[in-house]
Amino acid sequence: MHGIGKRRWVIAEGYLPPPDARLSRQLSSHETACMLNAGDAPAQVTITIFFADREPAGPYRVTIGPRRTLHLRFNDLADPEPVPTDTDYASLIESDVPIVVQHTRLDSRRAELALMTTTAYACD
Amino acid sequence: MHGIGKRRWVIAEGYLPPPDARLSRQLSSHETACMLNAGDAPAQVTITIFFADREPAGPYRVTIGPRRTLHLRFNDLADPEPVPTDTDYASLIESDVPIVVQHTRLDSRRAELALMTTTAYACD
Amino acid sequence: MHGIGKRRWVIAEGYLPPPDARLSRQLSSHETACMLNAGDAPAQVTITIFFADREPAGPYRVTIGPRRTLHLRFNDLADPEPVPTDTDYASLIESDVPIVVQHTRLDSRRAELALMTTTAYACD
Amino acid sequence: MHGIGKRRWVIAEGYLPPPDARLSRQLSSHETACMLNAGDAPAQVTITIFFADREPAGPYRVTIGPRRTLHLRFNDLADPEPVPTDTDYASLIESDVPIVVQHTRLDSRRAELALMTTTAYACD
Repeated sequence: MHGIGKRRWVIAEGYLPPPDARLSRQLSSHETACMLNAGDAPAQVTITIFFADREPAGPYRVTIGPRRTLHLRFNDLADPEPVPTDTDYASLIESDVPIVVQHTRLDSRRAELALMTTTAYACD
Repeated sequence: MHGIGKRRWVIAEGYLPPPDARLSRQLSSHETACMLNAGDAPAQVTITIFFADREPAGPYRVTIGPRRTLHLRFNDLADPEPVPTDTDYASLIESDVPIVVQHTRLDSRRAELALMTTTAYACD
Repeated sequence: MHGIGKRRWVIAEGYLPPPDARLSRQLSSHETACMLNAGDAPAQVTITIFFADREPAGPYRVTIGPRRTLHLRFNDLADPEPVPTDTDYASLIESDVPIVVQHTRLDSRRAELALMTTTAYACD
Repeated sequence: MHGIGKRRWVIAEGYLPPPDARLSRQLSSHETACMLNAGDAPAQVTITIFFADREPAGPYRVTIGPRRTLHLRFNDLADPEPVPTDTDYASLIESDVPIVVQHTRLDSRRAELALMTTTAYACD
């Protein structure tokens, strides 16, 4: 199957609540870029993180295998630098083959969960 | 009326929390593909589920009658195999006539509800 | 100013939780179609409600003045018939001039609020 | 890098819950327009706020530096007038260079957080 989607995506919202060591990985606060590579070739993905008051960070590089989804937590990005917590950011996701990107945040700063999601903005 | 929408849609986010037998069907955690077939012909819909580390599952097949909506819970898919819980997935939804797809998750892992929704990604 | 947006929109998700008379209008569960008519002519809007197992309801008719927004609660639709609670539905929103539509649900079935929103699907 | 996105965006939903002085800035209810200017030129942004029953407010003016994101809280808009609380509104965001806009509300009227987000509607 040929790939489905676009090669450039933007998630303009980004915010990682401060971590809480008492919570499991499933229930701790996180922001995720859910990416689908429906095609038959691997997707080489590059992520750039933009901030309010400094130059962008990155590029961060990940590979998504053919016919695979990757739900990438921004909290897990480490190279070239971690994404700071309690800081506004935005992200640009570029792939060498078409992919689809959806953004999700699970927030557990309070006792209960809060969730939000949106299809990211696809660039022509 | 002619159909409205597109023939291919992607929901890149997918995650079914583990089931909780104490909750009613309305309030138990679920992910839903809300589909509208506004046209005058039935829509033959095929769903493929993609994972992080194995080949895709499916095709799952459903029919949406003319001028009908189907709010399909991924939890209810059974043939050819159930969608595993506590596992990242993504879905490709293909129809022989134009439809519109919106994605919703209700999460009741904690005492309170969390909700999220987005219009799915429509492919040309 | 000329109008902004499209003339046909779809919200494929629709569900009104059963009403709870103890809650204020602001905090009771509701689904809303937030519509903006940024143009200089009134928008004549027609809404059709689709169901899983019966023919569509409507048309419901509302007018949005020039340079005005209308946040229409589906709970408030009454003519030709109320939208049933605890029932899956979807909606088609048609206007004679371009508008923009965003869908929101506030859910207060439990003690805490849950919120979700998405830009509706714009038809060409 | 050339800019990414569009020059006109609409957020049809807008509602600021009444303020609660007991909460921190991070956890108090707010609505945000998250904007990314990925290009190498500053973005001059103009915001117009539409209401249900009066003429629009604005223009509000902000600048986003090159390669910067601005997460603008509607609660913080003051000139030419604050955005009223407990009032339905919608917003039109116009930029002289392409940007991407995502809408987020954090609602803390109850003890727990509720979150919602969507990519705004991009105008051609």
